[in-house]
Amino acid sequence: MAARPIELFVPAITPFTAEGALDLGRFVAHATWLLESGAHGLAPFGTTSEANSLTLAERKAGLEALVEAGIAPERLIPGTGCCSVGETVDLSAHATALGCKGVLMLPPFYYKGVPEDGVLDAFSQTIDQVGPDLRVYLYHIPQMSGVPITLSLTGRLIERFGDQIAGLKDSSGDWSNTAAVIAEYPQIDTYSASEALIPENAAAGGAGCISASSNVNPRGIRALIDALGTADELEAHTQVAAVRTIFEGLPLIPAIKAAIAQQAGDEGFAHVRPPFTRLSNDHTAKVEEAVRLCGGRSAP
Amino acid sequence: MAARPIELFVPAITPFTAEGALDLGRFVAHATWLLESGAHGLAPFGTTSEANSLTLAERKAGLEALVEAGIAPERLIPGTGCCSVGETVDLSAHATALGCKGVLMLPPFYYKGVPEDGVLDAFSQTIDQVGPDLRVYLYHIPQMSGVPITLSLTGRLIERFGDQIAGLKDSSGDWSNTAAVIAEYPQIDTYSASEALIPENAAAGGAGCISASSNVNPRGIRALIDALGTADELEAHTQVAAVRTIFEGLPLIPAIKAAIAQQAGDEGFAHVRPPFTRLSNDHTAKVEEAVRLCGGRSAP
Repeated sequence: MAARPIELFVPAITPFTAEGALDLGRFVAHATWLLESGAHGLAPFGTTSEANSLTLAERKAGLEALVEAGIAPERLIPGTGCCSVGETVDLSAHATALGCKGVLMLPPFYYKGVPEDGVLDAFSQTIDQVGPDLRVYLYHIPQMSGVPITLSLTGRLIERFGDQIAGLKDSSGDWSNTAAVIAEYPQIDTYSASEALIPENAAAGGAGCISASSNVNPRGIRALIDALGTADELEAHTQVAAVRTIFEGLPLIPAIKAAIAQQAGDEGFAHVRPPFTRLSNDHTAKVEEAVRLCGGRSAP
Repeated sequence: MAARPIELFVPAITPFTAEGALDLGRFVAHATWLLESGAHGLAPFGTTSEANSLTLAERKAGLEALVEAGIAPERLIPGTGCCSVGETVDLSAHATALGCKGVLMLPPFYYKGVPEDGVLDAFSQTIDQVGPDLRVYLYHIPQMSGVPITLSLTGRLIERFGDQIAGLKDSSGDWSNTAAVIAEYPQIDTYSASEALIPENAAAGGAGCISASSNVNPRGIRALIDALGTADELEAHTQVAAVRTIFEGLPLIPAIKAAIAQQAGDEGFAHVRPPFTRLSNDHTAKVEEAVRLCGGRSAP
């Protein structure tokens, strides 16, 4: 099978003002910088984006701001999965109408231990209601959602909806699961959540990565993708793995936002919404080290 | 300390049409029957109510339908806790404006492993934004939310908000936790999620129960409450424990809805939304036994 292009989609963070309001100016500025820095596209409103701490109206306003700023909707895979099918349909129809490449869809995630048939029903009702233009990237992150996207469920959805099931993001951290998805369902684009796994993902026939730390290290990750199979691959991989390791030792989302603030020289990027708290100053040295490894933010 | 009144609040199920729409007619009819059958009040839009499978607009419409049907808002403690503070504020302000006794509030439940300070911030911002008329019943159900309402968090909220923290529902199933909440914070109303624990709850100084199976067995549970300390207590307790045991062996929410359908002689009560599936016919005999123990639904 021919290898597919390896791409980086950034789960762009959502900036907030000091008062906690959605900060559309910094949101658009950060998104623009990410694309200028080598990201192939953006997957806003996922876990790293604090999407579930936003209202539906804020999620729509944020997506519209990106498109209005001139970002091609073909480069956007926004997260749209809510606990209720009605709300998932609402956000997915909105993103589809804007022309987005697809949507990254969590399963309903309040109830745990639910039957696979019920999760299948949730996705099926959503796709049926949004219609044939919708492209779904399944979002497997059982450590948050509590509801896995199993191999079996993935297969049943592909069987039912064909190429409307466009891909899967595996945030489980279990490479053997990612490898199994790619092997079983080569027709969909399967992304790893860790940039450190890009070589394995690419070699297996995957589609690349959607990684939290790419908010800070888009150039390093893009350099790794461009270096795959060349003499530069090892050095590029060492850099992305070093950055990732720093963030894995910190409260992830507050640390990513603190790093962006430092990289951009703008403390306004550091605000989080509850249930997160701002990164403790105890971690400043580690954030500085990550930013040093990634380089500063060049003037726009 | 003087014992407080022991009360039953029913987490009323949310009926749906065969097409999956909110069925306000059956919702009001069921709520009315529950109150006529001895429930002191209702706690709609909780876990048993499939609240997180509804849109915000549906939750508001449902609550308004109850009040418009003449149910006193002083008997209502609707669930309002969403993942985002903005949505929790929206629902809580709506319920407060309607005059509800209080709201049953989940913590933000998407992110796991979050700091207690962040959960405190979420509750605090919500209470500050809704204002002084809000009364909060904290909802501890870690097996679904993944975010516990710890003793420490409860104490910090009471310290900050005084009698705006009106109570706590402990759905953890861990009686030692319920007992610790009652002992540490006797000023709030602490409810067990199991009617089988009503004697322990009452003896310890708790406020009663909010139990899924009270949707089918409101009379039996009310009889137990009325029999506390009398010669009839043991028999009443035996009945409620027998009913509960049957439901604990089944997919809970589909089974409760199937039982209501059978009890009311109306299959329209049995529909569930994804991620649940309708109860399998394999369980019909168990549902029939539960309904036999609870008795039929008398004509309204």
